[in-house]
Amino acid sequence: MKFQAPKGTRDFYPAEMAVRRRIERAWRDASIAFGFDEVDGPTFEHLELYTAKSGEGIVNELFSFRRAGGEDDYALRPEFTPTLARMVAARAAQLPMPVKWFAVPNFFRAERPQRGRLREFFQWNVDLLGAEGPAVDAEVIGVAVSSLERLGLTAKDVRVKISHRVAAAKLVRALGVAEDKVAGAFELLDRRDKMAPDEFTQRAAALGLGGDALARFEGAVRTRVPMSEDPAKLAAVAGIPAEDLAELAALRGAIAAAGLAEWCEFDLGIVRGLAYYTGTVFEIHEASGGERAIAGGGRYDGLVELFGGPKTPAMGFGMGDVVLGLVLADRGLLPKDGAELLPRPDAFVISGGDPAAEAELPRLVAALRKAGLHVRHSYKATRNVGKLLGDASKQRSRFAVILGAEIAQGSVQVKDLASGEQRAMAVGDLLPMLLR
Amino acid sequence: MKFQAPKGTRDFYPAEMAVRRRIERAWRDASIAFGFDEVDGPTFEHLELYTAKSGEGIVNELFSFRRAGGEDDYALRPEFTPTLARMVAARAAQLPMPVKWFAVPNFFRAERPQRGRLREFFQWNVDLLGAEGPAVDAEVIGVAVSSLERLGLTAKDVRVKISHRVAAAKLVRALGVAEDKVAGAFELLDRRDKMAPDEFTQRAAALGLGGDALARFEGAVRTRVPMSEDPAKLAAVAGIPAEDLAELAALRGAIAAAGLAEWCEFDLGIVRGLAYYTGTVFEIHEASGGERAIAGGGRYDGLVELFGGPKTPAMGFGMGDVVLGLVLADRGLLPKDGAELLPRPDAFVISGGDPAAEAELPRLVAALRKAGLHVRHSYKATRNVGKLLGDASKQRSRFAVILGAEIAQGSVQVKDLASGEQRAMAVGDLLPMLLR
Repeated sequence: MKFQAPKGTRDFYPAEMAVRRRIERAWRDASIAFGFDEVDGPTFEHLELYTAKSGEGIVNELFSFRRAGGEDDYALRPEFTPTLARMVAARAAQLPMPVKWFAVPNFFRAERPQRGRLREFFQWNVDLLGAEGPAVDAEVIGVAVSSLERLGLTAKDVRVKISHRVAAAKLVRALGVAEDKVAGAFELLDRRDKMAPDEFTQRAAALGLGGDALARFEGAVRTRVPMSEDPAKLAAVAGIPAEDLAELAALRGAIAAAGLAEWCEFDLGIVRGLAYYTGTVFEIHEASGGERAIAGGGRYDGLVELFGGPKTPAMGFGMGDVVLGLVLADRGLLPKDGAELLPRPDAFVISGGDPAAEAELPRLVAALRKAGLHVRHSYKATRNVGKLLGDASKQRSRFAVILGAEIAQGSVQVKDLASGEQRAMAVGDLLPMLLR
Repeated sequence: MKFQAPKGTRDFYPAEMAVRRRIERAWRDASIAFGFDEVDGPTFEHLELYTAKSGEGIVNELFSFRRAGGEDDYALRPEFTPTLARMVAARAAQLPMPVKWFAVPNFFRAERPQRGRLREFFQWNVDLLGAEGPAVDAEVIGVAVSSLERLGLTAKDVRVKISHRVAAAKLVRALGVAEDKVAGAFELLDRRDKMAPDEFTQRAAALGLGGDALARFEGAVRTRVPMSEDPAKLAAVAGIPAEDLAELAALRGAIAAAGLAEWCEFDLGIVRGLAYYTGTVFEIHEASGGERAIAGGGRYDGLVELFGGPKTPAMGFGMGDVVLGLVLADRGLLPKDGAELLPRPDAFVISGGDPAAEAELPRLVAALRKAGLHVRHSYKATRNVGKLLGDASKQRSRFAVILGAEIAQGSVQVKDLASGEQRAMAVGDLLPMLLR
């Protein structure tokens, strides 16, 4: 029988797993530096948890199922936010606020796999609930940037593109969109790259954005303003009062104070499809714009309430492993062979075949491992020390420990595999030397 | 709307997550010390991968599903071995042998949840393929023991119970069980605690184990032989030649050489239900026997071949987080509040309300985090330094850094929250002090 992994899923052999762990370590280290605590939830949830947030339309994108003989509909989690909101709502009375949580779960989407998008992927989720204001928004953006910095990316490699739902709403209203069509304008903006220019123009007109207003709208959403410039520039392009973009000005100050200015730019074209965002929204893109978003998130102050909790301000984002992995590989920030990221052995223990050495080998290996060292040995029948030293090097061991007849006198040969230097050593001195 | 986690699954709030990560760290550290590389596979596989190994009977224990509009049947993974065998078979020609892999995935069983058994759980899997012999079996048992030792368990707390399929088969044949009924005898032995004594006696007789043979069989499977004694004792109890248990004698030597003797005992009552084991089998139990097995595994030399690869010797085990967590809690080896296991902040930065301090706080927090430190601050409106120092202590920070008007002269107050000692410090000296 021959079997393959399901379409859109991955087998992680050691080299691929080492890359995944490197990315996860950057996520985890950044989270902890910023004072977030790790959480997780079930891999599958009640299907209604997802339809409650996203409507019935999401069902087609989910892997859903029922236990044989069971009555509940479940779905593999497509994202973390509903689980998070459920968990916060369930303990809202006891949880000390703010809640600062991160998670590194796997998610599932029943879509057609394509570049940067798989059916199972890993995603870092960071959420800060129970606090609000530009400084909190900047702090959440800061943890995302910190993880990228830890992976070797710079402000030249990626751009954090920031908008604000309130400012964007004021913009479209000022340009003539009626209150009840603001959401439609966001949807149109979100989907503008997926439609022909004619269709965009027609739909914009239907929303009240015709002629000059549309030109000013397009001008504003196509203008990117770095943090070195005043976001009032956008108001000028759109021909609206600068006060309408006050939220951006406040964010700019907080971003500068958090040391993030060179990474960020305002981009009113960033919408984030999800309807539940209420304030700051952002996406992180590879600088050339050639890939899908590396990360995306924003402020969603109404969601915990939707899941039965109290009204709770909240800001968070998700960053998946697939696009990030492509960007890192493209920038040469991952080794060609991920196996180079695997932990290196401290010692590779070799017996030359002497009976006393043969008897000592398993004892010495066990003793060194018990002391916490990473110790390997050969499983081959050969006792050719030269060949076995080759294996020790191939396995990237720091030292080789060679056991010969002199083990009867408590002595071993130790070879530093980097320098090639070899010397005799009392077996009792081995452990302290290796632990250094 | 109010939602709950699906039955038999868990929400991991920070305290529970910290416990899970502590267990996973012991698993990972033991794996690496013993020279195993981490792997992972998809969370769901083609359903046939599981029925190929375990027969159609397993379908009722699985969560299985189909993508809407798709034609493939999938199942959430109930164990790792089929994925492992598939991955090894797919790259058998390229993989350097032996393959030493570990994984820490989650698994799913559609069974009724009960103590020690959930519908979603985490399980450490360790497998060594392409090498055989008692020393290899002892090494695999050794990595399991190493993880328990790292968690604080001792040979007094747990017992590694070891049997061997070949020796057990020789025993039952010597007692009169026909060749074609040996598997039936193992099945009976495996299920003997789940049936009334009468039923057991009747079924044993049907297999050829009546009267005196049954008494000798029962005597042998109820006798536990520590490694300090010769397993030939079991042959004597059963009235069979000592040579029939030669596999146990060989294992005994390898276990002693690996320093595991005090943890282990022979127990021919250990069967492991799975039919595919071919040699050594073992289970790790809490010493009183009051819980389900903490771990179980053995040698399965035929499985890679079943999945389309070459004949490959293999030995491995699984250790789940649920029973282990119960045993650790019972022995007082986990804090009452798992939150004690969370990483401690290096610094908690406080502003007393001076405008210069207010402006400096986000900058200082960002700079310290950028240097890799774990830094927190308050989200409260209060600028009462005493109250904020209380919050710093509650969050278990090592130091509090207090920013006042003197920040204009580049000076801050630093309080060691363990000793209570407080002193002024140049802001430039802060980072080197905290990194110490």
